[in-house]
Amino acid sequence: MPQLGLLHGRAWASLLGKLLRPPGAVCIGAVHSHSQGQRSMWVAEAVLVSQLKPHQEKSNFIIKTPKGTRDLTPQQMVVREKILDLVVSCFKRHGAKGLDTPAFELKEVLTEKYGEDSGLIYDLQDQGGELLSLRYDLTVPFARYLAMNKVKKMKRYHVGKVWRRESPTVVQGRYREFCQCDFDIAGQFDPMIPDAECLKIMCEILSGLQLGDFLIKVNDRRILDGMFAVCGVPESKFHTICSSIDKLGKMSWKDVRHEMVAKKGLAPEVADRIGDYVQCHGGVSLVEQMFQDPRLSQNKQALEGLGDLKLLFEYVTLFGIAEKISFDLSLARGLDYYTGVVYEAVLLPTPAQAEEEPLNVGSVAAGGRYDGLVGMFDPKGHKVPCVGLSIGVERIFSIVEQKMKTFGEKIRTTETQVFVASPQKNFLQERLKLIAELWDAGIKAELLYKNNPKLLTQLHYCENMGIPLVVIVGEQELKEGVIKLRSVASREEVAIKRENLVAEIQKRLSES
Amino acid sequence: MPQLGLLHGRAWASLLGKLLRPPGAVCIGAVHSHSQGQRSMWVAEAVLVSQLKPHQEKSNFIIKTPKGTRDLTPQQMVVREKILDLVVSCFKRHGAKGLDTPAFELKEVLTEKYGEDSGLIYDLQDQGGELLSLRYDLTVPFARYLAMNKVKKMKRYHVGKVWRRESPTVVQGRYREFCQCDFDIAGQFDPMIPDAECLKIMCEILSGLQLGDFLIKVNDRRILDGMFAVCGVPESKFHTICSSIDKLGKMSWKDVRHEMVAKKGLAPEVADRIGDYVQCHGGVSLVEQMFQDPRLSQNKQALEGLGDLKLLFEYVTLFGIAEKISFDLSLARGLDYYTGVVYEAVLLPTPAQAEEEPLNVGSVAAGGRYDGLVGMFDPKGHKVPCVGLSIGVERIFSIVEQKMKTFGEKIRTTETQVFVASPQKNFLQERLKLIAELWDAGIKAELLYKNNPKLLTQLHYCENMGIPLVVIVGEQELKEGVIKLRSVASREEVAIKRENLVAEIQKRLSES
Repeated sequence: MPQLGLLHGRAWASLLGKLLRPPGAVCIGAVHSHSQGQRSMWVAEAVLVSQLKPHQEKSNFIIKTPKGTRDLTPQQMVVREKILDLVVSCFKRHGAKGLDTPAFELKEVLTEKYGEDSGLIYDLQDQGGELLSLRYDLTVPFARYLAMNKVKKMKRYHVGKVWRRESPTVVQGRYREFCQCDFDIAGQFDPMIPDAECLKIMCEILSGLQLGDFLIKVNDRRILDGMFAVCGVPESKFHTICSSIDKLGKMSWKDVRHEMVAKKGLAPEVADRIGDYVQCHGGVSLVEQMFQDPRLSQNKQALEGLGDLKLLFEYVTLFGIAEKISFDLSLARGLDYYTGVVYEAVLLPTPAQAEEEPLNVGSVAAGGRYDGLVGMFDPKGHKVPCVGLSIGVERIFSIVEQKMKTFGEKIRTTETQVFVASPQKNFLQERLKLIAELWDAGIKAELLYKNNPKLLTQLHYCENMGIPLVVIVGEQELKEGVIKLRSVASREEVAIKRENLVAEIQKRLSES
Repeated sequence: MPQLGLLHGRAWASLLGKLLRPPGAVCIGAVHSHSQGQRSMWVAEAVLVSQLKPHQEKSNFIIKTPKGTRDLTPQQMVVREKILDLVVSCFKRHGAKGLDTPAFELKEVLTEKYGEDSGLIYDLQDQGGELLSLRYDLTVPFARYLAMNKVKKMKRYHVGKVWRRESPTVVQGRYREFCQCDFDIAGQFDPMIPDAECLKIMCEILSGLQLGDFLIKVNDRRILDGMFAVCGVPESKFHTICSSIDKLGKMSWKDVRHEMVAKKGLAPEVADRIGDYVQCHGGVSLVEQMFQDPRLSQNKQALEGLGDLKLLFEYVTLFGIAEKISFDLSLARGLDYYTGVVYEAVLLPTPAQAEEEPLNVGSVAAGGRYDGLVGMFDPKGHKVPCVGLSIGVERIFSIVEQKMKTFGEKIRTTETQVFVASPQKNFLQERLKLIAELWDAGIKAELLYKNNPKLLTQLHYCENMGIPLVVIVGEQELKEGVIKLRSVASREEVAIKRENLVAEIQKRLSES
């Protein structure tokens, strides 16, 4: 299985210095007290006192990125590019097509899709025209696309940013702007085959990224609803109790129980019955056991869900990933639109981590079946069943960056292969001719933007930037019709005929 | 020089059917007249009558993307991916690092940067907190990044979406959400070396994309300002007259002159003096000629600009691209922040095109020097000189898609290499085991999500999707411990030992 080369060997970089530093906030403003000059103000949070007046007297204006957002540095971009390449390769390996949708949607498109989280949607200002909102995930736009174009069958992936007005817990790595990587299969098929493929994809990606051991929890919304019914939860409370159960990863059962009883008005004995179920997790044998459960086996919905899970276990066994899958009755998933199987991949903590943070197990991928969402957009309510998954790449980026810190090694942020240098003055013209030749041959090359840089400055630049080769042109070389080719690592230099230079460089690069 | 493989050979696809169709607007709404059922309403523009009530009675709600935006289909995504790969490869060949900034900025960051176009900025709704706007380009966020992090030197590229509330002229390929690809060099260097590299990059990309013949118009803001001064334009009108000149690509001189005189209050004789200059275009000899111009040679700013242009011509000659560069006194560029050299690449029309649309020459890349922008964000006004370029990828996407229509060939939207089939019933288990083996070996594979699909259906799927290989497992094969490997093109089938299958497939794929 393809793996993330980045995580092996000596390529780990110490990114975390930059990463853990809170997004740089620099004060652009200054208080102009007439005689004393400027007094800089440094503050952590921005208060916009007045507008920036360029070229004129500046007022207090903190230059920063918006709350909960950040710039991605070249180092971070390199890590992201490698991780996203691995994820997208996997999606393509499974036959997915690419799709892109606008960053914003008509406000109505997002309405009533996200349950209690709808308040986190960013709206655009009404500047005359349509009411718009920034997309909250990639699933609802996908469903809108299917309905709008009457597409009945599609396997697509989508990598893009989404925006949520979360309370800023940037420290925990939650941002208001973040990247999602989704894979979804739309269409009416025989049960559980696409669902099992989604689990296989999650396994391939998490194994490929080498993040450590992981487990995929699986449940089914119909089993949850059946469980609520047989425990005595009134149907009107299914959604809200489901939201409470969803918090079990982050909160203890005691706190969740308290929320259900005190805040949501559930009878204590009903909560306790639920409590018995949600402690259950296991393999296919737990599915069999639930089939025999005196209460659950009386509920039609629960039986349907259990039947599908049994089939799912059969397929993941054929895929060779059964040992990664755990049927977990506490898994709920927050989003309103799920209708069948739901799943969530968590990294398994090392024993030390488990002791430190017993609850925060860290979901890194999740998804489920949503058979009703497309129908919500269709004039006649025609349904297109869908199942999909989302890779929690932001969390994965942080983990990888953290690991790179541990390895403490530098990562290259450019790919330059050759540097064009001269030891003498007045060789800019030769350097420019030479570098154009390299660029035209597809070779990645740089020079210093100076008329007469010192040779040492040029060689230091190569060492700092990790550029492996230097071509050097000077008076002697020009006279002899040669160019010196220097290996930065070994400091070896050889003279090469000018007309053979490109071929020799290409040979060296293909060997390395 | 690397070129866009897509544009050669038989890979051209007929995308334009989908492309020229206006973004699909489907009616989700229906008027519920109690006895008569539903009456669908199909309209081209959306009027949001009321909210979507899922699972309940639906009111009139047109399901569409927001005005001026569109979804990108898998076909379009394939074209984009190839073009962006070529563009980014070129940026990396020139030593650029990647950078990403948030989709929105503090409103103040964008204020007073875009001149007359500032009204096109999308603002976010004030939901309590900071006032935010969607980014309008990638240049201002880059300058903000440099100032905020006190970066004095950086060569970076950025590919990302930007948003502008343009009057919807979608027919002409202008959208309110579009992709920009920028390359910029920040830092204090010897004059015109980075500027010349920007022109070289534009040439490499436009040649690589094989869009036909092109020309890069070059001018300098200081020459423009000098020209305005010696023609008698009052200094307070420099910006607004510059905006008028910028329209010369799209409007005739007569109309531009009218705008300057009637709307902007310029004296007719001043306008006529400008008119004499803006008709001038040519090579380095025109630079020499302008040095001798009795009026222009009296202006210090103009002389500085002319001196730099002379140097620029020297460098682009060394880069071997001088014949692509034209000094054009009518080139202004709309943005406020340019301070020095400005440039714009246009595709040269064929004689037939020139007759049809004499004015619309089609800018496909542009940029310039902006030495003051970073200083606008710095508390002490410290300047970081910058020069950069933006590739007009949206325009290029349309041109390439248009060309593909001409070639009328299908493009593959998936990369699937192998299809897993069975001619018999009850072979789902074997198919699932087999495909997992292929996926784990990194082979791109698909199967039909059906328990018992017909062989013909499976083979048709391969032909439709352009999948080159099929592996077939049936009773006979299972008994003999082999798998049949079929070439879709030649319809040849060979039996291969099960344990050699992956190796054989990898061999075939590496040969093709």
